[in-house]
This record gives sequence, C-alpha cells and structure tokens, in this order.
Amino acid sequence: MNDELYFVSKPTWIWYPGDFEVWLGNIFNNRRTERGAMFPPFWKQDSHYVTVEFTKTVETSEEEEIAIFAEGQYNFSIDGKLQYPSSRQSIPQGTHKLSLKVWNQATPPTIFIQGKTIHTDATWQATYEDKLWIDENGVPHGSGIYVPVGSWHFDSPDTPPSTYHLEREEQRPVCCDTISTNSSLYDFGRETFGYLKVKNLQGTIHVYYGESREEALDKDHCETLDVLSCPVCSVGRGSASATSKAFRYVYIEAEPGTTYDEVLMDYEYAPHDLAHCGTFRCSDDELNRIWDVAAYTMDLTTREFFMDGIKRDRWTWSGDAIQSYLMNYYLRFDADCVKRTIRQLRGKDPVTAHVNTIMDYTFYWFKSILDYYLYTGDEAFVREMWPRMVTLMDYVEGRLNEQGMAEGKPDDWIFVDWVDFPMHKRGVLCFEQILFCKAMETMALCAKVLHIKTDYRVKSEELRNKIKQTFWSYEQKAYFHAIEDGVMNRHITKFPNMFAILYGLSYEEERKEIMQSVMLNPDIEPITTPYMRFYELEALCMMGHHDKVLKEIRDYWGGMLREGATSFWEKYVPTETGVQHLAMYGRPYGKSLCHAWGASPVYLLGKYYLGVCPTKPGYAEFEIRPTLGDLNWMEGDVPTPHGIIHVYMDKTQVRVLATEGEGWLYVGNRKTNIKANEEITITY
Amino acid sequence: MNDELYFVSKPTWIWYPGDFEVWLGNIFNNRRTERGAMFPPFWKQDSHYVTVEFTKTVETSEEEEIAIFAEGQYNFSIDGKLQYPSSRQSIPQGTHKLSLKVWNQATPPTIFIQGKTIHTDATWQATYEDKLWIDENGVPHGSGIYVPVGSWHFDSPDTPPSTYHLEREEQRPVCCDTISTNSSLYDFGRETFGYLKVKNLQGTIHVYYGESREEALDKDHCETLDVLSCPVCSVGRGSASATSKAFRYVYIEAEPGTTYDEVLMDYEYAPHDLAHCGTFRCSDDELNRIWDVAAYTMDLTTREFFMDGIKRDRWTWSGDAIQSYLMNYYLRFDADCVKRTIRQLRGKDPVTAHVNTIMDYTFYWFKSILDYYLYTGDEAFVREMWPRMVTLMDYVEGRLNEQGMAEGKPDDWIFVDWVDFPMHKRGVLCFEQILFCKAMETMALCAKVLHIKTDYRVKSEELRNKIKQTFWSYEQKAYFHAIEDGVMNRHITKFPNMFAILYGLSYEEERKEIMQSVMLNPDIEPITTPYMRFYELEALCMMGHHDKVLKEIRDYWGGMLREGATSFWEKYVPTETGVQHLAMYGRPYGKSLCHAWGASPVYLLGKYYLGVCPTKPGYAEFEIRPTLGDLNWMEGDVPTPHGIIHVYMDKTQVRVLATEGEGWLYVGNRKTNIKANEEITITY
Repeated sequence: MNDELYFVSKPTWIWYPGDFEVWLGNIFNNRRTERGAMFPPFWKQDSHYVTVEFTKTVETSEEEEIAIFAEGQYNFSIDGKLQYPSSRQSIPQGTHKLSLKVWNQATPPTIFIQGKTIHTDATWQATYEDKLWIDENGVPHGSGIYVPVGSWHFDSPDTPPSTYHLEREEQRPVCCDTISTNSSLYDFGRETFGYLKVKNLQGTIHVYYGESREEALDKDHCETLDVLSCPVCSVGRGSASATSKAFRYVYIEAEPGTTYDEVLMDYEYAPHDLAHCGTFRCSDDELNRIWDVAAYTMDLTTREFFMDGIKRDRWTWSGDAIQSYLMNYYLRFDADCVKRTIRQLRGKDPVTAHVNTIMDYTFYWFKSILDYYLYTGDEAFVREMWPRMVTLMDYVEGRLNEQGMAEGKPDDWIFVDWVDFPMHKRGVLCFEQILFCKAMETMALCAKVLHIKTDYRVKSEELRNKIKQTFWSYEQKAYFHAIEDGVMNRHITKFPNMFAILYGLSYEEERKEIMQSVMLNPDIEPITTPYMRFYELEALCMMGHHDKVLKEIRDYWGGMLREGATSFWEKYVPTETGVQHLAMYGRPYGKSLCHAWGASPVYLLGKYYLGVCPTKPGYAEFEIRPTLGDLNWMEGDVPTPHGIIHVYMDKTQVRVLATEGEGWLYVGNRKTNIKANEEITITY
Repeated sequence: MNDELYFVSKPTWIWYPGDFEVWLGNIFNNRRTERGAMFPPFWKQDSHYVTVEFTKTVETSEEEEIAIFAEGQYNFSIDGKLQYPSSRQSIPQGTHKLSLKVWNQATPPTIFIQGKTIHTDATWQATYEDKLWIDENGVPHGSGIYVPVGSWHFDSPDTPPSTYHLEREEQRPVCCDTISTNSSLYDFGRETFGYLKVKNLQGTIHVYYGESREEALDKDHCETLDVLSCPVCSVGRGSASATSKAFRYVYIEAEPGTTYDEVLMDYEYAPHDLAHCGTFRCSDDELNRIWDVAAYTMDLTTREFFMDGIKRDRWTWSGDAIQSYLMNYYLRFDADCVKRTIRQLRGKDPVTAHVNTIMDYTFYWFKSILDYYLYTGDEAFVREMWPRMVTLMDYVEGRLNEQGMAEGKPDDWIFVDWVDFPMHKRGVLCFEQILFCKAMETMALCAKVLHIKTDYRVKSEELRNKIKQTFWSYEQKAYFHAIEDGVMNRHITKFPNMFAILYGLSYEEERKEIMQSVMLNPDIEPITTPYMRFYELEALCMMGHHDKVLKEIRDYWGGMLREGATSFWEKYVPTETGVQHLAMYGRPYGKSLCHAWGASPVYLLGKYYLGVCPTKPGYAEFEIRPTLGDLNWMEGDVPTPHGIIHVYMDKTQVRVLATEGEGWLYVGNRKTNIKANEEITITY
C-alpha cells in the first residue's frame, strides 16, 4: 500500500459526544485523596456508553482502501452488510454508508479511520442504540437517534483518546532545610502541582506535602502524604509519586538505611497558546502582582477540567467552574476546557441529584452555557447540550413546591456560600429563585438560538414577577432572605441582592436602591470568601464603583499576598492571623491555598477596567469601556475566539486594536466604532 | 494472624444489585457474530455503576481484624473516618459503621470482606451516590438511597464475580467424513455448544460450523466460521476457537502444509442440581423423546442468561425469555438464571426504548416478574425490581395515544409473531392492549405484595373494560385485530384471542366462545412458530383439550424429530421439505435449529398433564390436576423452590408425593389434601 494514502487529509479520533469527558471526569475526580485514602465524589459517577455505532455516508470516485483503528472490539459494515473483520477494508467506488459498532467497557469506544479521501472527523454521526431490526424476510426497519460525534485533536492513530494526559516539566526545589539526621524539608518556592521524584532512591521514604511549611511538617495533620520506596514494596511503589499532588513544601523522612540523591518534581500543566492570552499591566505594581498570582492560580486549576482547589477538593464543582470559565475568557480562552467541564458536570441521564448535589450549582450550570455561547458563539455546543439541559430542567421542575418555587428537599444541598454569620438555608431562598430564573431564561435563550419552540420564556417571566412580588421590600429597598414554613425571614444578605443586579432581575432604579441599602451598607454582614467576592465586586463594577473595587482588591487580594500567598485561597479573613489562615472544615490545614475562585481579579480587570465584553455571540460585536479607576495607566490584551483585543489607557489617551469582530469604544460620552485590525487612538 | 480467623462464617462477594447482570449481559450479547463479524444488539447497552459505596453497621464484642478484597480501587472508612489504605483493617470493639467506596470502570465494583464475625453478605447495603457532604465546620449532611446488595455464590476471595464462567467438558465427534485431501466434516452427533479444539495444529485451518450438514459444507453461507492457526497469526489466534459456537457439524479446510491430530470440543454448560429437576416419562416413547429433546434444548439455551437461539441470535430476548422461565420452573428451577435474565433485560434508567425495542417484549417483562413471584415466592426480588418496574411503566404510559392505548410509534417494533399470512402491525393492536393490561395488573399485584399504594389497579380495570368495549365482536365471538387510522381492522387472528384466555381477560363463557369461533376454527390462519404454539397449546390445555394437544405435540414436535432434529427449532412449517427447513430471514441457514421457545412440551407436560401448579407464591400452596389424555400412564417430578412434587398416574391410580408446601390433588370430582412428605395414592 502506498504510504501516501495516509496524511493527505486530516483524520481524527471520534467518540460519542460527552463520553470522553464522562470517562476522564471519573479519573480526574477519583484522584482526590485524604491522608492517602482515595476519596471519590459523593454524587453519581456515570459511565460512557459502552457500545456505540459510528456512521457516515461517503462518496468515492474510485475504490479506496481504509485503515481502521479502534479502542474496543468492533465490527464494520458497508451499506448495512457486515464485513469480515480486518483493520484494512476496501470501499467500492460510489456512495456508501459506512458503519462501525464499537464496544468498550473500560474506556470510551472510539475510532480512527484513514484513507485517501475517507476519514473520521467531526462530520460523522454516532448513536448508542441504532434500533435497526431485521424482520423474518431479512428486511431492515427502525432508526435510532444519531448525533454529531465528539472529537478533539487526537489526530494520530498512535494517540487514541484514552492515552490523553497533560504536559509535564521537570522542576527543582529552591531550597532544602535539614530538619533531623533523616529528614529534610524541601521548598519549591511557590505553590505547585505535580509528581515528586527522588533520584537514586534506595530504601523507603515517607513524604508529607504542605501548601504551607507548617502543614508539611505536621505529619499527623497534613492533608496529603505518600510513601515512596525502591525496590518497590507493598507500601511504596517506586521513586516517584503515583498520583499528582499540590504543594509548595515537601517534608521527607527516610527510614533507617535509606539513601537518595536529588529531590525534584514533574510540574504538570495544561499547555496554552501564549499568543492568545489575556494580559494586564498597570501603574500599580501591587495590582500587577495580584494579576500575576491570580493568573498563576488559574493556570494551576485549569487542567483536564477546571478544578476548584488543587490540594484537597480536586473535583469539578459547578459553582466554582462558572467563575473559572469567566476568568478563563479573559486569560487563556481555553474554550475546550470549558466545554469539557460543562459536559462532565452534567454527566448522563437519568438526573438523580442536583449538579454536585447543590441546587445553586445546577442553576449555575445552565448560566454557564449562556456565558459560553456569548463568549464563543459556538452554537453547535448549545445544540449538543440541549437534550441534557431539558432533562436537567425537567428534574428541577419536578421538584418545585406548590408555589412553583425551588425549595430545597432533604437531599438537596443549599450552598450559597461559606458564611461566618448565622444564615438559614431552609425554605424558599430568594437567592435560589433568582438563580433559577436565570436558568429558565437560559433555556429560553438557547431554545431561541436553536429555533426550538418552548414555553421557557413565559415561565421565566412569571418567575421573575413572582420573585419581585414575594421577596422585594419596598420599605427596606432590598430582597428578603427566604420564606420558611410560610413565614418571611426578613434577614437581608448581600447574596440575593447582588444577584438581582448581576442577573438582570432589577432594573436601573432598583439597582441603585440595592447599592445603597445593601451593597454599600456597613450593617449588612460582609462576604468573606473570594467565591462571593467575585460577584460582589462585579456588582460594584457594574454600578460604577471602580475606585472602591480597586481598593477592595488591594485590601483583600493584597492582604493574601502580604500573608505570603503564592496562589489565591479558598477563603481569607483579614482579621485572622498565623496558622488560623490555614484551617478550615475543622481541620488545621483544611483550607485550600490555591483555589480557582480566588483568581477573580483576572476577570474583573479584563472586563471592567480594560472594559472588554462581547455584545453579540463570539465577539461578532463587542464593546470596550476602559476605566482607569485610580490608576495612572493600564494596558492589556483580552483574547477573543480567534484573536485579541488590545487596550491601552492613560489619563489622556485610549488606544485599542482588535484583530477580529466589530465593536464600539466608549470613552466619556464618545462612542467610536472599531473595525478589525484598525488601531484607534482617542485622546480625551 | 490466626488462620482460623477466616472460614468461621460465610463471607461472599457483593455488588450493586443488577450490576453483575448488566456487565455480564454485555459480554453475553456481544458474543454474537455474523460470518465472523461481531454483532452487538441494536438497543442501548448499559454499564454498571462505576463507583459504588457498600456499607453495614456491625457490632463486635472485641477488636477484630478484617481482610478486604475488592475489584476496583477503593477506600475504607469506619464511622465516616477514612482509614489509611490497607487490605487488613482493624475494627475496634463496639458498634461501627463500615463503608467502602469502590471504583471500577471495566467490571462492576465488588468487595469481599472476611473477619472472625464481620464479613460481606446479603445484609450489606449499597448506593451509587451517598450524597454525604461536609459543611465548612466539618459536619456531615445528606443521605443517598441505599438498597440491599447483590450477591450470588462467589464465596471465595479467589473467585471474584468478574471471573465467572460456565462449566466445560471435553467431547469428541461421533464421526468424520473426509471431503477432500485437505478437508473433513466432523459430526458431533447432535446439536451442541462450545469451543472447538484442534490438537497439535501446525498451520492454519478454516472452520465452518453448521447446525446442519448442509450449512457446514456451504462455506459461503454458513452463519458462523473461524480461522485457527498455530503459531498464532493475524487471522487465527491459536488452536481453539476464542468464542463459543453452536453446531452439530464442523467442516475443516486446512491450508497447504498444515497438519493436525484430533478435533474435539469443550462443551460449555450451566451446571444444575440433578436432584432438583423436572422429569417426565409416559407410555408413549415418541412423547418421551420429545420431552428429552425439549429438555436438551432448554439446557443448551440456559446459560449465563436464557438465550433464544444458540447459533445466531445469542441475545437475551424478553418474549423468548418469559417462555424459558416457565419451562425452567418445570425443568431445572434455576431461579438465579431467571433473576439474572430479568435484571439484564431491564438494564438501567433512563428507559429510551422498549425492552429489545419491542413493545410486546416490554409487557412480557412485567408479566415475567409476576410468574417469578408465583413460582418462587421471592418478595425481595420484587422489591429490588420495583423502582425499575415503575420507570419502565412510566415510559409505557408516556407513549400512550389519546385514548390511553399502547399504539406503536415509528421507533417501536411491534413483533407479535413471525407470520406467513398478511397481518397488519400498525395502529392499536388488541393483542398489545391485552399484554399491556396484564403488565398493569402485574404492577398492581406487585404493589400489593410490597404494601405500596398506587393507582395501577384502577388503571388496569379501566383498560380491561376498554379492551372489551373496543375490540370484542358480540357477533363473531372474537376479538378483532386492531384499530388503524380510526377504523376497525376486523381481521381475526389467534393472537389476541388466545391471550384473552391466557391472561384472564375473558371469563368462562367468553372463553368457550373463543375456543369455538377462533381457536378450533380451521378458517383462522394457523400459527407456525413454536413461540406462539406455546401459548396456543396452553390455551387449549386450559380449556381441557388435552387429547388434542398431545396430538398436536406429536405432529409438530414429532415432525421436527422425524426431520432429524436433535434440538427444537425457531420455526417449523410441516409442509416444507429438505433445506427449506434451514432457511429464514432470506438466508439459507438463517433459521435457528436450537431455539428456546421450541422447548414448550417441557412446560405443557409438567403443568397440564402432571398438572402441577403453585396457587400461592413459592408453592406455599399448590394444586395437582393430573390428566392422562390418551396416555396409558405417566410419571414425573416437578421442582419446587426447595423440593420436588412427584406425580404418577395410570388409568386406575394416582400417586403423589410433595416434599414441601401444602396442596390439593384433583382427580375427577375428588379433592384431596396433600401434606409435605406424605405420599397419597388415589384409586379411581
């Protein structure tokens, strides 16, 4: 056979859409450990479809030989006729329907076909039940539901999807303290993630990881640990850790007689295109450091999926993820990682629990698809997810109370936020209804994108009115907290009120009222997690409080830096001191010191200071509203699906350059049209 | 550790109920081949839950060490506290909740624990989502749905469930014909099933299997084939067939230079307890031969699951299986195989198609649970299946037409039977409504067994009335065929009419009318498959036509024997001759010559001649109504859950002995009470 037969076109591995993520998600989520013990999630872990049919009707001008690669046991048919098994098959000249049925329990069924003109790619279709039955006369009947296949960039027969892995790079500690004759503490200089390696290990060492020095040295309480040994024995399985770990410090105790040379690590990371990244620099060096550490926090948590905390949690969490997506649109624009995470979080039908078992997280999941569509314009993905959006919304609607409100049932986790003040989570929370309303709006908008007739628009409007009528206090100019056992809980928190602003429930006048009565009111309990700080600061930005937000960023994120943070934390309470900062969940090192939701300055600075935002899907149209706040100058890039928008601003001038789309630059009262690749300078 | 620690109690492997069957079912169904090509089913193949938690609260009077074996990666916790991974764990004195979470993509997560008093067994519980979340203060919340685990007789740590296999026994051909210098035809004497083996093979042979001599010799059209080679090469992978095959004849062609010695096979079978089997002997030797061949047909098709046809189909089919179950209650009483098959056929939620995509097969699936409960009294299994019964019935009810009738949608297969006469399958078939009504009745009865309040009783009564009002012709004394496009199709077939008798839709008078107007009416098209003959002859027996049924059995099954059958066929048309008998589905050897539904004499002779039938679940009460028909004498055993009922009858005497339960013997007008282990002789 002619070698040229291959490589003239671009074949790629294909699978049932979403199945790669379901499978990879289990591996990802099950890597979590607690003091050495495996710690899988407490929600249902799904499986890929174990038997999948792939099909495409092809047209060839001459007989063509194809080579078939598959992960799984498979068959191959031409026009419904099964062929004798062979990895080389001959397709006759003409129009033919090719079908392959592949079975694989352990990893998703996938195929890769290459021929002169025929190959697998995104144009193929897949089904998990072809429903094709043959009657007693040999006549075929029936038809299954076929959907476009999933694919990514597995473009070689030698790299099937099940071999997927992140990149690695060897790194060395920056210093080592000898603690005793048989123990040392290694410092890798900053928070990192990967696989510890010990050169020339002879014997057994006990390894204690720490995000802090205190944690690594506290053998009894550090969250992650390891035993390495050479030769391999029952407790230690070699000279490198088998699973990745998050740490800055590594404390190593050697058993008697053990020797080893260098201690180093393989840093593990998701590669990104440096030419297609967000950047930010300004006149305030502290803010630059904050942006850098936030970006590094994002890079550590952007992996096979968006991870929340790299040390402990290591699961995909919908509420964390939606923030990662938004930050990511202003940092690496890794749309694939967004899609993977959205697919993975949703998993398979039947829906037996809220996403991550958390009601709010279900609602964020919907909203994240709307965000994704706005930033990428990727309608195909909305189409792919639509059936699973419908069944998840069916689940939500099937659990509404008699008033049509989303009220937590005993097995629902109502999260909202980690709070330090007493806050009831029973009954009908206004916060949850606002998120529910946004989820319903998302359904309506996505249906419109897909030209599907539904009644989600009517439902979302009804819900919006009901929320206002039920929870809004005209007296206090605020949304009350909840209805519990039929009685209004008049507690006022920032949560529902800021989401009334953010998710468009409140119109102009009401927003201003909320700002005064709640968001800027010192009597309202403060928010202490970076998680909800994200939304709080965004609401402040939306309402024009850019100076205040910069101050808050410097206080809060600057505060973490002053505490020595090299990545941003799960929670930060400025009044705490010393090791108090490390504790959470009743455990001395329970707090995650690298938590995705800590990276929000990346988002805030890109969206509300550089001021870049798409106004039509995929940046077909966008606006730039640069705002200096108290800065002297700032400059940065915001990635778009296939390009970059560059913004420079100082006290007299704004310069912008966009490499795709069309937009509007707003400076003062001036509105200037922006065309792709035309630099605009405005002096004001 | 003391060796005695083990083996003082009876530990066994456990798993999430139904998951062993889902996994094994995929292996089973995917073994089907067509001319060497793999041929998986065209319906959804499910996966086991990949991550399962097992739990039990145990009480120990002293500290106890346990040994843990698992299929999958797992963790172990005591009272919610994760333990450092080790296959030996120490359980402190007192009451403790043990939990293990196990992850396994490829095979079902299973565990086996043995200690002095603590071990895994059927008293453990399992869940696929424990929903147990920890709040910021380290306090656990939430709870999943736990169900009793699945288990069988995997009672040794060395035989985990994933190693399950049937028994094998070496067998030799009875003769060999030399066909040419390099080819021979081996005859194994009768239909068989297993793995061909060739001793001292050097080279490559091409193997063509045949249920008939004609098929084996027809290299281009035989349904199954193989290539064996030693040393292993790309086409042949050794000196024994890798997958089991059904055949009587094997035609072998050797490639030039190939040598081999003996050709033999490993017969593969499900073992059964000979002391707990149905038997039948009578004064008619032909009938004895029919019973023997029927029993052999059942033994060939009773495997990991009940299989329909061992050569070609090799899938689990609900309509075939319900007959196998009934035959099995009178032959091997393999209740485990019934349970496995029922679980496997149902698979997992969501329901996306009818069972096997066939509407009638969904309804039989329900009915089979009622039958199972009647014969075994196993309420635990009804409880296990109940949630999946509900979701399958939800699926059925979600597809009813406006009149509340089960009308086929385009992707539903309406099977009824293979028929040789024109019969419409569109619209609302009376046959399907009668089955649907029985399914609804099954829901009502099972709900009653489980003390669950439902409205299935009301629904089934409504449906029963609607069927009568809609389809019964007072004029023709028969149920019409269907409503098509609003118009009654007045075609009268045996199908709905015999099910009106069998499934209790018709009361006494109507049954007699149906007998005359349909069942005994020569103008009604005859039934030609053993599949529907099963029901036809049962209806005749129910109505007292025992002589006629014996004649039919001699004609029809005796006819197959006279054609040389060594197992019973998928279909038999007495008017066909020679190779016509082998063809089906437009293929010369498409017909299955060993098809479970061909074995119905085993059922008919046990139930309607020996006359044994449970009247309360699990033979707690039973009746014996022996009927000789035209026989001089008959004798046999009918297995009960834990025993045997022996019946002897000749023209003057009846003798019965039951080893469990209490029953009533009906001879003529006499009704005699039967107590366990007391032989009763009645002279009449």
